[in-house]
Amino acid sequence: MLKPIVWTGRFLELLDQTRLPLEKRYVRCQSYRDVRDAIRMMKVRGAPAIGVSAAYGMVLASRELGADDHGAYIERLKAASRDLADARPTAVNLAWAVEKMLGVALGCLDWRKIPEAMEAAARALEAEDVEANRRIGQNGASLLGDPVTVLTHCNAGALATAGYGTALGVVRAAVEQGKRVHVFADETRPYLQGARLTAFELLEDGIPVTLITDSMAGYVMSLGKIDCVIVGADRIAANGDVANKIGTYSLAVLAKENGLPFYVAAPMSTLDLACPTGRDIPIEERDSKEVTEIFGQRVAPKGVGVFNPAFDITPARYVSGIITDRGVAYPPFEKSLRDLVEGGVPEARGACGGTPEDLTPPEDSTHS
Amino acid sequence: MLKPIVWTGRFLELLDQTRLPLEKRYVRCQSYRDVRDAIRMMKVRGAPAIGVSAAYGMVLASRELGADDHGAYIERLKAASRDLADARPTAVNLAWAVEKMLGVALGCLDWRKIPEAMEAAARALEAEDVEANRRIGQNGASLLGDPVTVLTHCNAGALATAGYGTALGVVRAAVEQGKRVHVFADETRPYLQGARLTAFELLEDGIPVTLITDSMAGYVMSLGKIDCVIVGADRIAANGDVANKIGTYSLAVLAKENGLPFYVAAPMSTLDLACPTGRDIPIEERDSKEVTEIFGQRVAPKGVGVFNPAFDITPARYVSGIITDRGVAYPPFEKSLRDLVEGGVPEARGACGGTPEDLTPPEDSTHS
Repeated sequence: MLKPIVWTGRFLELLDQTRLPLEKRYVRCQSYRDVRDAIRMMKVRGAPAIGVSAAYGMVLASRELGADDHGAYIERLKAASRDLADARPTAVNLAWAVEKMLGVALGCLDWRKIPEAMEAAARALEAEDVEANRRIGQNGASLLGDPVTVLTHCNAGALATAGYGTALGVVRAAVEQGKRVHVFADETRPYLQGARLTAFELLEDGIPVTLITDSMAGYVMSLGKIDCVIVGADRIAANGDVANKIGTYSLAVLAKENGLPFYVAAPMSTLDLACPTGRDIPIEERDSKEVTEIFGQRVAPKGVGVFNPAFDITPARYVSGIITDRGVAYPPFEKSLRDLVEGGVPEARGACGGTPEDLTPPEDSTHS
Repeated sequence: MLKPIVWTGRFLELLDQTRLPLEKRYVRCQSYRDVRDAIRMMKVRGAPAIGVSAAYGMVLASRELGADDHGAYIERLKAASRDLADARPTAVNLAWAVEKMLGVALGCLDWRKIPEAMEAAARALEAEDVEANRRIGQNGASLLGDPVTVLTHCNAGALATAGYGTALGVVRAAVEQGKRVHVFADETRPYLQGARLTAFELLEDGIPVTLITDSMAGYVMSLGKIDCVIVGADRIAANGDVANKIGTYSLAVLAKENGLPFYVAAPMSTLDLACPTGRDIPIEERDSKEVTEIFGQRVAPKGVGVFNPAFDITPARYVSGIITDRGVAYPPFEKSLRDLVEGGVPEARGACGGTPEDLTPPEDSTHS
């Protein structure tokens, strides 16, 4: 599997996800502004991946920003951190990572030691993200039966993180446990992350994948082809409302209507307890050209109005469980998410999918 | 507005809808096989439009098929009718139109007079389709308040019919009544009929239209931007289950979840009382390339599995009303649809959208 983020020690090399799967090309970021632009242009995307990229962007900023004294240096670092954090508004991991890096800087008494401290912190943050994904995978895999068919949206895979993936981390962990997992991947217009990235990384791993358009997901559920839905998240409010790629809300409603569990997989850094509900999460609107053009090919008449929200809010009432690196939170989320933040580990529950004889009833669940 | 179907008296000229809005080009059909191929390749699409096209295809067949006697001629005509009817399986209007034309042929005592009789019948069928659309428009417009925002899917417009449109006929009739109608158009992957055709024909008519991806429809509803959903249909079963463009089922579920009326607009020729339920309607699956390529540009990795159903079934329980040229049928549809077929005209009900003071309560409705 291609690594989306490569820190060379001097530069940040980002796999250009706008060109996949047609081209496998890295773009070199030599300054924090290069990182900011790569995030804006979605050359790197996925909440955890943009968090890790921004952390390295802070490392680049700490090296390139000159100053004569500690105070001026810190001010310039703060300005750079705001610039990075504002690159995209919805994913909280971006602001979280930048804040964390700024905290490292503020903790250094000798400002000339800040670049070194920040590089160590960014490397640690990258390693922690992969580790968090593996724990998400472990925690989520026990929710899946065998065989199982999972519907996913957008790309919450290795390409959306420092590696392994959140929603696809759950799939990978289940496959590593020997479960027979089949994935239905929504293509995810307008940006086609499902077609271009999810299909690509699952094929590379030899995991069976069927590509569908977003409009087919509901029908596929109604045909009984799906056991559960697992998606990633860009921000999760204190009440369990979830901001994720546009189309997630529709999937959640359709899952509920078809009696299917709807899971959200995300690291703890995606929780934003400062947002009481989804109404407090800013939703990014992007350029209309993402809708009217596909790979530069015009598909709609000139002059048409476009609404292009990049994310939507799925109210907590549609969410069956939130799979984190600390365990799976179940409704009511106000309590279960707070418990996770405070270090509690929730009880395990039963699995979806599987042949009837494979299924352990929820009350006797021995899955952990 | 461009006419999708032009009968020159000698040939059938079909507006190539695979090229719109980039190119406005007609393809000439000189034989019934040309018509069959144009239907298969979706150069002409939309249930009523393929019905009318197939009728002219039968005219071409009646002219080109040579025979020495009445029996042989009729047999060849029957074979051509099967060929045309099999071009696409889901829309019942295709089989209906071909059957109707065959009936005209069978009614001719002198087989040499069949071509002339068939041409007259095809012209009548075309005129009847436009007339049916105008009546659908009238019947549906009374369901819309003022102002009103309508969400539609695919293209059930002038381009899908002999002219005026079914779902968009309702929009046009409301606009002609002076109502302020805004349309949200789903782009409708994989074939992008919403982006390419619906946006195009509404822009040409100066009707405000906002293009969204299919995945945005649910979110747009949840934001309170939509007053009702109106779609066309390819076949309607006796119980009110509706086969229509893939994605329609999802819209219907999302409309119900958001408390919005979900209307289906279609001529009586779309009713198929021989199908008791949606389970009896064949669903066409099309080439995987429609999903993996857009305008010839590959958007998914090679080797990915694809599921590409062209239509889905919306169970009648999600349908608020079926707007036909004979009136609007309401649940329970077994009775209301049978009544329409037998000539009854249902009672009018209240309108959606509008400012509160504009709304006539359903029980006092004076809309007709």
